[in-house]
This record gives sequence, structure tokens and C-alpha cells, in this order.
Amino acid sequence: MSLKVAVVMGSDSDLSVMLDAVNKLKEFGIPYEVRVISAHRTPSDAEQFASHAKENGFGAIIAGAGKAAHLGGVLAAYTTLPVIGVPIKTSMMGGLDSLLSIVQMPTGIPVATVGVNGAANAAILAAQMLAIQDEALAAKLAAFKVEMAEGVRAKDAKVQAELQ
Amino acid sequence: MSLKVAVVMGSDSDLSVMLDAVNKLKEFGIPYEVRVISAHRTPSDAEQFASHAKENGFGAIIAGAGKAAHLGGVLAAYTTLPVIGVPIKTSMMGGLDSLLSIVQMPTGIPVATVGVNGAANAAILAAQMLAIQDEALAAKLAAFKVEMAEGVRAKDAKVQAELQ
Amino acid sequence: MSLKVAVVMGSDSDLSVMLDAVNKLKEFGIPYEVRVISAHRTPSDAEQFASHAKENGFGAIIAGAGKAAHLGGVLAAYTTLPVIGVPIKTSMMGGLDSLLSIVQMPTGIPVATVGVNGAANAAILAAQMLAIQDEALAAKLAAFKVEMAEGVRAKDAKVQAELQ
Amino acid sequence: MSLKVAVVMGSDSDLSVMLDAVNKLKEFGIPYEVRVISAHRTPSDAEQFASHAKENGFGAIIAGAGKAAHLGGVLAAYTTLPVIGVPIKTSMMGGLDSLLSIVQMPTGIPVATVGVNGAANAAILAAQMLAIQDEALAAKLAAFKVEMAEGVRAKDAKVQAELQ
Amino acid sequence: MSLKVAVVMGSDSDLSVMLDAVNKLKEFGIPYEVRVISAHRTPSDAEQFASHAKENGFGAIIAGAGKAAHLGGVLAAYTTLPVIGVPIKTSMMGGLDSLLSIVQMPTGIPVATVGVNGAANAAILAAQMLAIQDEALAAKLAAFKVEMAEGVRAKDAKVQAELQ
Amino acid sequence: MSLKVAVVMGSDSDLSVMLDAVNKLKEFGIPYEVRVISAHRTPSDAEQFASHAKENGFGAIIAGAGKAAHLGGVLAAYTTLPVIGVPIKTSMMGGLDSLLSIVQMPTGIPVATVGVNGAANAAILAAQMLAIQDEALAAKLAAFKVEMAEGVRAKDAKVQAELQ
Amino acid sequence: MSLKVAVVMGSDSDLSVMLDAVNKLKEFGIPYEVRVISAHRTPSDAEQFASHAKENGFGAIIAGAGKAAHLGGVLAAYTTLPVIGVPIKTSMMGGLDSLLSIVQMPTGIPVATVGVNGAANAAILAAQMLAIQDEALAAKLAAFKVEMAEGVRAKDAKVQAELQ
Amino acid sequence: MSLKVAVVMGSDSDLSVMLDAVNKLKEFGIPYEVRVISAHRTPSDAEQFASHAKENGFGAIIAGAGKAAHLGGVLAAYTTLPVIGVPIKTSMMGGLDSLLSIVQMPTGIPVATVGVNGAANAAILAAQMLAIQDEALAAKLAAFKVEMAEGVRAKDAKVQAELQ
Repeated sequence: MSLKVAVVMGSDSDLSVMLDAVNKLKEFGIPYEVRVISAHRTPSDAEQFASHAKENGFGAIIAGAGKAAHLGGVLAAYTTLPVIGVPIKTSMMGGLDSLLSIVQMPTGIPVATVGVNGAANAAILAAQMLAIQDEALAAKLAAFKVEMAEGVRAKDAKVQAELQ
Repeated sequence: MSLKVAVVMGSDSDLSVMLDAVNKLKEFGIPYEVRVISAHRTPSDAEQFASHAKENGFGAIIAGAGKAAHLGGVLAAYTTLPVIGVPIKTSMMGGLDSLLSIVQMPTGIPVATVGVNGAANAAILAAQMLAIQDEALAAKLAAFKVEMAEGVRAKDAKVQAELQ
Repeated sequence: MSLKVAVVMGSDSDLSVMLDAVNKLKEFGIPYEVRVISAHRTPSDAEQFASHAKENGFGAIIAGAGKAAHLGGVLAAYTTLPVIGVPIKTSMMGGLDSLLSIVQMPTGIPVATVGVNGAANAAILAAQMLAIQDEALAAKLAAFKVEMAEGVRAKDAKVQAELQ
Repeated sequence: MSLKVAVVMGSDSDLSVMLDAVNKLKEFGIPYEVRVISAHRTPSDAEQFASHAKENGFGAIIAGAGKAAHLGGVLAAYTTLPVIGVPIKTSMMGGLDSLLSIVQMPTGIPVATVGVNGAANAAILAAQMLAIQDEALAAKLAAFKVEMAEGVRAKDAKVQAELQ
Repeated sequence: MSLKVAVVMGSDSDLSVMLDAVNKLKEFGIPYEVRVISAHRTPSDAEQFASHAKENGFGAIIAGAGKAAHLGGVLAAYTTLPVIGVPIKTSMMGGLDSLLSIVQMPTGIPVATVGVNGAANAAILAAQMLAIQDEALAAKLAAFKVEMAEGVRAKDAKVQAELQ
Repeated sequence: MSLKVAVVMGSDSDLSVMLDAVNKLKEFGIPYEVRVISAHRTPSDAEQFASHAKENGFGAIIAGAGKAAHLGGVLAAYTTLPVIGVPIKTSMMGGLDSLLSIVQMPTGIPVATVGVNGAANAAILAAQMLAIQDEALAAKLAAFKVEMAEGVRAKDAKVQAELQ
Repeated sequence: MSLKVAVVMGSDSDLSVMLDAVNKLKEFGIPYEVRVISAHRTPSDAEQFASHAKENGFGAIIAGAGKAAHLGGVLAAYTTLPVIGVPIKTSMMGGLDSLLSIVQMPTGIPVATVGVNGAANAAILAAQMLAIQDEALAAKLAAFKVEMAEGVRAKDAKVQAELQ
Repeated sequence: MSLKVAVVMGSDSDLSVMLDAVNKLKEFGIPYEVRVISAHRTPSDAEQFASHAKENGFGAIIAGAGKAAHLGGVLAAYTTLPVIGVPIKTSMMGGLDSLLSIVQMPTGIPVATVGVNGAANAAILAAQMLAIQDEALAAKLAAFKVEMAEGVRAKDAKVQAELQ
């Protein structure tokens, strides 16, 4: 049975951003679970979830959080699965607080950080991880790359047609 | 018996900074314990320590950490004691990563943040908290304020004498 | 009689943010006073207020200010009570000016800083300080923690129900 | 045969930082290749390397670069393997330029970013990715976590012994 | 026949900004081509375009991109023509990520960077480059300078008339 | 006859901000002239204006400009009158570019910098400079200080009445 | 009798920077007093000094301080004399904390801010203020400008001779 | 006769950085002149130099300056030649002040900005501009690109040999 990807967020106010991850996982046919778990308000739930994520069939964990965004680090503390951190945009310099709180992890406990609000990229990264030993998924990723290129070329053609 | 203050740091490399807190607590005659507990490497120790800190006789917790400095937040998640965060200076903009990771906590779980490397101030703040209902300690703090003022005035006199 | 918490702001334009502190104090049943005192426009009022805050029955002072936010530091200069600083959000990098002006205090005069616009957290922190030796208040804080956790779990259940 | 991890750097001046990744991979017994490939000076080598990395037996690519650090993004453009970016510290705000140039990738082409100079974490992250379907490696990672915790506890004991 | 200027953007969402460059080139009577080419989604198109730009009659390339804005650098890697980079404004500190990703190029591969959203200035800069050995164009630039000065003086007169 | 204050701005788009300076000068009864002079588009006008400002009866110059805000520095280069710089807010981190471009002047040529969009403060500062040897103006400034304090106290009374 | 300039610093550790101001004032023959007064440790001395500065023969006040640099603002709160703020360099982003704490003053209480460690410029600015109505001092400033220009030209000649 | 490139710096303290530009121009056989001209201390020299640079045989101007780095903008105000700005590194966030002061120019007056301390790149960029219509120089730039690639490949081979 296929490994699942967890999409965890620190607050349901992060949901609109994190849906990009959910939708991308769906697109790739990757099974997922969505959770609201707070590193600070439900820390024992975070511990429980992360400690058992591997045995519960997860292959990777996506964690979205804002401001002093500890969620990714707290989950990573309790698992050896790769944890992908999504900094949620804030008004503090456009999310720099979230970004630094996620990416600057101490040696030994990495969090794979994507750009601010980069939930879609987090899902693609999770897919890339799972695809390391899953050729069908790797093929989907290759097809997605081709499709993106075609999308850009179509726009290129359109812009050239309009502006020259 | 007097309440203790915990001085916790994420790594023993933070010790040279955090000793300022230890020394200041000693000066005020406040009992303390010093611990190295990592939010990410020994998360269950962090949980254990924070969950039982109140019943173990602590009145406040000082937590020093650098970079993605989650220690203060992780301890605060497991206790209702006030947690004071000390951002440790890093080369990333002089500690801005540590500062933002500590101060920008979500609603419900504050960490009382002092300046970068401000371990002495963390101890003074802990003393101020304990002094709310401890007049002897409050008197020591008042004396410390007078002493600081006298120190400044002595330097003022010296500078005036030398430069005028 | 219970100790009061002061909620001081540098300008009445900060009131909408600082009301979060007032409301949280009400919730915990902590007596409070709200003041508009400017470190720069009414400096002698700041001095008067802070110098006598302890004898006037205050246990902690919350100070909210923006930009070159000196209010917390100025009050802290005149009292040994713990002063909690709330950086008010500005357009200068989302409040980084307010944050740095409050948190980077010199040794000897700490200001316990919370996140940008973190007035609710300032009140919780004040409650934690008062609760160090007030078991009834400590119990309220513990209950508040449980309630927050339940809130997160309810949202977790809702999100799981909707998205799986 | 085991999948390899590539450790690519934009300049041999990055070698001292990137050796942390090499050493960590060795520790985990993961085969690796080390390359100096510049996104700007040898762009066709970057293209060649990334385009064929999967068929050449790589499971993940670590890319370290500084300043306008395009290497990770350029490699990611040509492969569906996960690319891990290591921002190399610079004097421009401690590596913020490198960090932002790596982490802020457009939708579709993620780079899994670790902290500034976080080459060891990049290797651990690569190991976590490979361990998703490699139980022996997963066991090594779990053992490494235990070992780290023991290291922290030993230091905790030492600090407690010295300072109490 | 006159040399052309290329106006390349990483995404058609950058078009509204980059039209300022197109319009300015038109104003100066400089032939141009507009392209949508992504450094990450259509990297081989970027290579093709830049490698042949000189032989295809271009004298300079303007590249607009946002966030981890690699486009200018990637084009510059494949050509000896001057490449002018336009950082597109983002919510991450008003485009600082785009700016640093463009301007901080390694030695050997410069990108001539203009201000955030400075597409008009990019076109003027391209005109200045072409005008080095094109006196007619240099005269147009000189006339443009006079015209700008007259515009400022007209506004000065108006403001003086209204406010004194 | 009284010395005038010049209110110079780099573009008429800065007028809405700079009117705060004009209005404050009016309030203090200080004669002024308002000019639109661009350091880059009408540099010789800037030179002419600044070179002759002293002999033309000006006592101080206020210069408002945004982004790479050179106006204050350029005027200061041509006069020994004090030049007060007003950084105009931009989207680049809330005006940090304007602020740094104005305040970080080389030794020998200071620009007295006020806060972002601080045109009113620029006028007050100009008044303070002129009041050094003008007791009537000094009295107006003292009255203005009293009036501000009364304004704060009125708001304090109102807030206390409403919230207690 | 000539008006004096006060050179006030928050700590004697700022003396090496602030001596640049003292020396420049000496050069211009402006009488001065040097003081160590802390906004936070000796706030009543700050109040006393500023409240009486005008009647005690001062024409301007230079205030140097670092980190949460409140000294300039606190002095400005108690006087209508112009206050010039010198941000002292810190390790927090090279003094950005000091700069923002000084320059971002609220409307009504300006502090004329110079660059980080710009004590010499603070003295020149003070001289420019006093020179508004002191032609002898204005002549010295004009001579200083000529001398600076000659210094640059001498270096220009030297560099041209060596490098061409 | 070949067009010259001017290497102008605001202070002779910038010489060690700007020599990288001089040496690179020499390497390409491009005639140059080196000047020390201050935008603020010798503004009329800046005006004179820039106003006559085109008629004096210059094809491009490189301007290096630090802090509030106005030199590039001031020269650009007086010429239609392309001006290349080199931000000199400062302690204020590693040169961010210099960078923003140079790159954020208003519409109409671009300065082609290179990275902090990027004097060599400034010279390469100047060469690229002159090479637009100079095939011999274009060939030298192409050869330089090949040589850089060979340098990287040699290091790649060395690193591979040592580490595998």
C-alpha cells in the first residue's frame, strides 16, 4: 500500500494556504491526511502524531505554520521521516519571521523548507521524495514538468503574438 | 522555601552567554538550577522538565537558544509558569533569527523575550516576577537600581573630569 | 486585595490592539487600569505613574507602543515591577522598529517583550507572573491551556472530517 | 545497489562548509559523489549533471551555493529528484541573500532548503528521504537520534554537576 | 540594421510591470522582442535563447523575475551580451528576495540590476548601452533628460504657485 | 526679517506627505518656500538652490525623497545650512531604502534625518533650530509641548472613563 | 557668551565613538560639555539635564546610544532644544536596532538622527544649527567644506598619478 | 580610438575594492581612468566629470561608494552614458545601505548595479556594454567565459579526485 503524506498546520487559519498542498497531492494521486495540530497548544498531540507517523504509514510530513513557526521543528524532533516546512506569510516583513523560525534548525534535526506560502511546492517536494523509489510517481513528476513547460511556452506564444 | 529559577539552554555552547543569568541570580540570592535541554534533540526531556517545573519548586524558567530557537516556546507549551526567552546571537543578522523565533509566539503561549544575549536581563526579569510578592527581593531590586545609577554617575563624573 | 495590572499605551490609536490585553485580563478576573501615557509627550506622567505603581497596588505593567517605542523602557526605568512590552505593528517592516526599540534594552533594565501586536499574550504573561504565588490564578491558567487545546482539537476534527 | 547522493557546490571555496555533508553521508554509509559545478560558469555541466542524475544512480542532490545562489534551482529545473539547497554564509546579513535566493523558488520547482551553512542537516535530510523505503537506513537515523539525545544528556549532567 | 533589445520575463504575471520596459523602448524607437521564458520551467528555452541572442541581432537583454529570481543569471550564463535584471516586487519585504537573487551574482557573470519593478529604467539603461556607439540614440537620451527636467520644473512652478 | 525654511521634495508625488511640514511651519508662523527639485532630474537646480539658500534668506532646508533618496545629501553638498531629510515611505520594507539612503551620510556632510514620512517632525526640528536664538519661537515650541501633553492627558482621561 | 553643545552618552562604553563629536566641536571652537547619562539607569538625571539645558546655556544636545537607544528621545521629551541622535553600532545588523530606536520618533518630538557611529557628523550638524545666526561659525563651516574638497582632490591626484 | 571606462570612487578608502575593476579592465585591454570624486565633498567635480565624460572619450562609468552611496546617481544625473554602481561593503548589514542607495533609483535615471563589492563584475559589465559593437572585445569576453568554465572544471576534477 502506498505511503501517505501528512499535511499538518498549526492553526485552521492556515488552511487556505495549505489547501495548495492538499490539491497537489490529489493531483499526483498520493494519499494524504490533513491535521490541525499546534506545537504550542496541543504539544502532546504533536508528539503523538510525529512519534507514530512512520508506523502509521506516512512517508513524509508537511508542516505549515506562521510567526514563531515551531511546528516543523517539533514534529521533526519526534520522527526520522523527512519533515517539510511551509512558512506562512505574516505581516512581519512578509513572513521572514516564519521562514527563519523554520529553516534555521540546529544540526541533527533538519526541516526541508520551501518558500513563504509555498504549500504546492511542499507537496511536489514530498512527491519527489516518495518518487525516489517509485517509478510511477517519478513518471508523473516528469509529466508535470513537461506540462509546466508547455504552459510557459503557450504563454510565451501568446505574449509574442500580442506584443510584436 | 524560596521558589527556584531554572536556567535552561539548548546547547552547552550557549553556556558562556547563559552564565550571565546564573551570576545575576546568585547576586540576588535566588536559588536556581541549570540545565541543558534541547527542544529538538531531547524533546521528551523538555516536556518532562516543563510539565513538572511548577510542582518541582520553580517559579520561572529562563530559556536560552539560538537560530530557530524553539526551546522557550516548547517549554511554555507544557507549563503555566512564565518562560523568559533569551535569543542567542548568531551570524544571521546578529541574532534576528533567534529573536524572531522566540518573540513571535502565537496567542495563548507567550514567551517573555529579552534582547539578544540578554541573559543578565532575563535573570533580573525573573527576579522582578518573584519580587511581585516578595518584599525582601523587591528591596534587593530597588537597591540594585540605586547601585546602577551610582555606577553611571561615577562614570559621568570621571568622563566630565577627563574631558572638560 | 488582588494586585492590579496596568495596561498603558503611548497613544489612543493603540487602543484597538491593547483592548486584547484588557479583555484577557477581564477573562482571568484580574483587576486592571488602562492609561494613555506618552513617554515623549507626557514624560513626567510616565515617571509619576511608574514610580508609584508598586505602592498603588500594581503587580505588573503592560506597555504598548509603536515605532521608536520607548514607553516600556521609560516605565521600567522608574520601577522594579516587571514591565511587559507590546510592539505595535507599523508599516516599517511590519513592526520591526517597534520590536527592536522595546526588546533590545540595556543590561539592568529588562522589558519582557511579546510579539508584534501581542497584547493578549502580554496579559497572559502578566497573569503567569501573578500566578507564581496565586494558586487560584494558576488554576485558571491551567484551565485556559486545556480550553485552548480543546479548541485546536475541535478544529482538527472539523478539518479532518471535511478534507478526508 | 544503493542510491547515491550528490554533493554539488558552486565553487571550491564552499568546500569547507560542504564537507559537513560529505562526512555525515559517510557516517550513514550512503554512497556519494562530490562535484564542483557552477550554475553560471559551467551551466551546461549543471544541465548535463542534473538531467542524467536519476539514471546515473542518484537518489537526491545536495547543492551548496552563496550570494545569488542559483545552483539548487538550476539543478532542480533539470531533474525530478529532490534537490536540497544549502545557503552558504556571506557577509550580506549573514547569508540572507543566499537563503532567499534558494528558498523562494516559484511554484513547480521546489528546493528543500536547510539553514545557512547547514550542510550536515542537508545530508541528514537526504538520508531521511532515502530512508523512506530503506528500513536499515531508517534504523541508523533512529540510532543517530538516540545518540544525539545521549550527547545532550551527558552535557546536561556535566553542566548540572559543575554549576549546582 | 539596428540591434534589438529582448524583454524576457519569467512568468506572464510579470507582464504588467515589464510593459514599462516595452513602452520605453518603443518611445526610443528601439526594436524589441518580448518573451516569456522561465529559468526553472523552460530552462532549455532559456539556454537556447541566450546562447543565440547575439547572433540573432540582440544587443542587450532585459530579464524581469520575482522571488528566487534566477532568470537574469541563467541568461547571463549563456551569453556575453549585457543582461539587465529587473527584480519584481513581492510581499517578502517588498521585493528584497528578488533584488538579492539578481544583484548578488558571482564574479564573472554580472547582471546589471535596476530597482524593484524598475522596468522603465531597465529600458533606459539598455538604450544607454546601445547609445555608446549610436549618436542618434544618444541624442534621444539627451532630449529625454531635458524633457524630464522640464517636467520637474513645470511641477515645481505649479507647486510654488499653489502653496506660496 | 525672519529666516525662511525651504520644503523641497524630489517629486510632486511626495506632496501629500510633505504638506505636514508646510502646515506645521504655518502653525509656528515660520516663513517657508515649497519647491519640487529632483536630485537626479534637475541636478543643476538642486545645486543652484542649495548654493544660494543661505544668501536667499533660508535658515534650514527640509528635503523629502523616497527610494534611493539622494536629495538631502545633494543639497547638503552645496550648503552649510542644516539639511533635514524626510524618508518617504516605499513598499521596499516600509521605507528602509529611503531611510538608509538619507541617514547613512559620509563624515563631513550630515543630513538630520527624521522618521519615515516624518514631515511634521522635520518642521518641528527646523523650528527648534531657528529657536536656538529666537526666544519667541522657543516659547511657541514650549507651548506646543504643553498642548501635546494636554492632548495626551485628555485622551488618557477619556480612555480611563470608558474602560474602568 | 557662546552657546554650548552637550555631548551625552548612555554608557561610557560609547565614549570612543562619541569622542569624534568632541573633537569636531573643539575644531570649530564650540564650547561643550560631555556627560554620561543613562535614559534607563539614571532617568531623573536625564530629566534634570534636559529640562534645564536651555537655561544652562546649551544650544543643542548630541545623544549617543546603542541597542534600544532611548536616550535621544528621553532628552527630547524634556527640552525644546534640537536633539541630535547618534546610533551606536551593535552586532544586531550593524546598528539597525539603534538607528530605528532613535529615528522613528512619534510626531511632536523629533530627534535629528545621523548615521550609525556618526558622532563627527552630529557635531557638524550642531555647528550648522548654531551657525544659522552666527556668521563666524558659518564661515568656519564653509572653510571646512573647502578643506574637505581639497582633501578629496589631493587624493584624486594621488590615485590618478599612481594608477594611470 | 577606443572608448575609455572611468573608475570613480567616493573615497580613496574604497580603492582596495575598486582595484578589482581596474585589473579586470586591464585584462581586457580597455583604456581607463581612475578618479576619486565625492558626490558630497566635491559635488562640482562630479558634475564636471560626468557632464563632459562622453565628449572626453568615455563609454561607461563605474562608480563605487558606500553607506548613503549617492555617487552613481549623482554622476548619472549629468550624463547619458551608462553608469555602473558598485555598493561598497559596510558594517550596516553587510552593505545593504550601500546597495539600496544605489539600486533604488527613480524612473529616468538608472544606475546599473552589481553586487556588494562587485567591482570585477562592474568591469566585466562595462566590457559587455562596449562589446555590443566591438567584436574583438566580444571575442575576449567569450574567451573569458571559456576560461572561467575551465577553471571550474579543473577544480571539479581536483575535488572529485580528492574526495572519492
